[in-house]
Amino acid sequence: MKNISILGSTGSIGIQALDVVRLHPDRFSVSALAAGANVELLERQVREFSPSLVSCSTEKVARELKTRLAGHNRPLWIGHSDEGLRRCTVAEDIDLVVGGLPGSAGLVPAFAAVEAGKDLALATKEVLVMAGRLFMDTVRQEGIALLPVDSEQSAIFQCLEGHRKSHVKRIILTASGGPFRDMPAPEMAYVTPAEALKHPRWKMGPKVTLDSATLMNKGLEVVEARWLFDVPPERIEVVIHPQSICHSMVEFDDGSVLAQLGATDMRIPISYALAYPDRIDSGAEAVSFPLLGALTFHEPDMVKFPLLKAAYDALAAGGSAPIVLNAADEVAVDLFLGGKIPFDRIAAIVMNCLNAIPCAPAETLKEIVSFHEYVTERVRADWPEFAK
Amino acid sequence: MKNISILGSTGSIGIQALDVVRLHPDRFSVSALAAGANVELLERQVREFSPSLVSCSTEKVARELKTRLAGHNRPLWIGHSDEGLRRCTVAEDIDLVVGGLPGSAGLVPAFAAVEAGKDLALATKEVLVMAGRLFMDTVRQEGIALLPVDSEQSAIFQCLEGHRKSHVKRIILTASGGPFRDMPAPEMAYVTPAEALKHPRWKMGPKVTLDSATLMNKGLEVVEARWLFDVPPERIEVVIHPQSICHSMVEFDDGSVLAQLGATDMRIPISYALAYPDRIDSGAEAVSFPLLGALTFHEPDMVKFPLLKAAYDALAAGGSAPIVLNAADEVAVDLFLGGKIPFDRIAAIVMNCLNAIPCAPAETLKEIVSFHEYVTERVRADWPEFAK
Repeated sequence: MKNISILGSTGSIGIQALDVVRLHPDRFSVSALAAGANVELLERQVREFSPSLVSCSTEKVARELKTRLAGHNRPLWIGHSDEGLRRCTVAEDIDLVVGGLPGSAGLVPAFAAVEAGKDLALATKEVLVMAGRLFMDTVRQEGIALLPVDSEQSAIFQCLEGHRKSHVKRIILTASGGPFRDMPAPEMAYVTPAEALKHPRWKMGPKVTLDSATLMNKGLEVVEARWLFDVPPERIEVVIHPQSICHSMVEFDDGSVLAQLGATDMRIPISYALAYPDRIDSGAEAVSFPLLGALTFHEPDMVKFPLLKAAYDALAAGGSAPIVLNAADEVAVDLFLGGKIPFDRIAAIVMNCLNAIPCAPAETLKEIVSFHEYVTERVRADWPEFAK
Repeated sequence: MKNISILGSTGSIGIQALDVVRLHPDRFSVSALAAGANVELLERQVREFSPSLVSCSTEKVARELKTRLAGHNRPLWIGHSDEGLRRCTVAEDIDLVVGGLPGSAGLVPAFAAVEAGKDLALATKEVLVMAGRLFMDTVRQEGIALLPVDSEQSAIFQCLEGHRKSHVKRIILTASGGPFRDMPAPEMAYVTPAEALKHPRWKMGPKVTLDSATLMNKGLEVVEARWLFDVPPERIEVVIHPQSICHSMVEFDDGSVLAQLGATDMRIPISYALAYPDRIDSGAEAVSFPLLGALTFHEPDMVKFPLLKAAYDALAAGGSAPIVLNAADEVAVDLFLGGKIPFDRIAAIVMNCLNAIPCAPAETLKEIVSFHEYVTERVRADWPEFAK
């Protein structure tokens, strides 16, 4: 029996992780659930999976959960905020933590999980974007299993299993291209949040969906792959693959390419990370290749989607540039979803921030967090300037 | 330094294996070359690669080779026929044997290589078709590395590396569909040998090319995969993939599919088998996914190509039925290439033989060889009857 903790249990990854857990009661036990403010769903999850620890975003939410669970007759600790989250991450009986918190909020808990020696199924790409080198050093020091939950990184991970990394020539990240793949560039200024939140292939949280529409998501994955698989950026290629059946590929020195394919169902990478090195029923449907139609691939348009190029630039600049990239994008996406800027200003803000905000030392977790906070504050304050 | 012996050095596999060897003089040394009657090419190969053993098909050819090599100043033993072939297979300094002999001729040498403890890069699919169970038992007993050279089997082998076979749900063998994929069935009676020998994707020997045109080749690969990967036939699926970029796939229990892709260049699977577990430059070009166009997949037409179904039937019948399948096909292809029967009679002969010739005990290598000879003789004698 594997005892798991799910950070972000009411989000897209958390819900789908619990779908997988539900299929395998003999294999997984839920030790802890941490969520934000969706107290209704959290209550249902607690009743169904009987964790011994729960954490909510605030004391108020925690109180409401306690009231709702008055009749619940299993031993249960309910906490909140950073301390609640921490306990749901490091408690002794936890074997594996599912890191499904959205955005930079997932950073500190991911480090806490690894430092406590927990295996980590990591969905939060910001961890590797903001703190790639430090995080991978910590993973190696602690000797834990780091299992990527992103479909692309899981694909690459699966293609590398059993093969020597020294023979990797290229990593080929596939991208659906998002909802505006074929939209003429001038029209992109008029895209609404509702349009940008409709992903053609994947059901995901709002930030990731929005980032898919700008290809920023693929840029973040380039940074992530660089650290996760220790491959220099010039060996990471992005290819648009609108059908999202091939989830990424690895090319080796002999010209052989291994690819991982499957339904566009996050339960495949989630179940792989939960059960690794086993494979279990994920609940996903099998792909019928004769029914697929054609699989196509083409080059990304880095002029129309400058944030993909910005990610490569940030990697090349090194140091804390990826932190600027990520923080500026978080703020810009918020501004767009709040109706304050048009769609094409997201990229403008990120690129202007990369040019304007000088790198800072960011080698410890504390420095990384405080530089992220500094950039976030600065972009929030000066966004009309950066959006020009 | 790995000392290799190439059986069938002047054939398609042998020539391409030597292409790979030529790229890596620091890694491979050629100990032995065995070929048929192409004495001119064999002479050139001997002069270039300086093996210490050579074997030709007949004494006459061996004599001619000796004359041609009169001025060759390296120590060289030149033999012929079964004994020459055997010495080129089992000589003490050989580390790895490339089994590239065409058809049933490759059977006995493959067993000899394994029994002598040599690693074996096996291209001759008839070995597993005719003697699958016995051969795999021998491989396991001797503990040698059996490395498939067929592009499809190599693809599956690569996809399984590092993953547990107990989690395999399906093996998906891809097939180009051959040159007559889109030809209406009634026209197939009028196909000429020259048309059938033009494969749209792969450059291969005549027997394999012809078998690709009837899909018999894929049928033989189904039988081969059944033994090579110990997967029951109902878990082996064939999918037509005209572009021949995806060389085969493995689906796992979680719905995840691993695929191996690459240029249609046999030097990729050959170099993989030669260097395993390393990967080396194969000389093949990299695939550019944006330039590929579309990859398509569809179901094979088992009515138009009944030999694919015949292979599944022979596997289901078990025992010596695959020997009948293979021997009848060898004779029928010869008859077609000799202009004695129309194209569509190849399948008729094979299917009628499967129905008419009862299975025989074929559990030892001797029994397998003699049953193969019996079927071959009988089909050669009675083909006008079987072709009806």
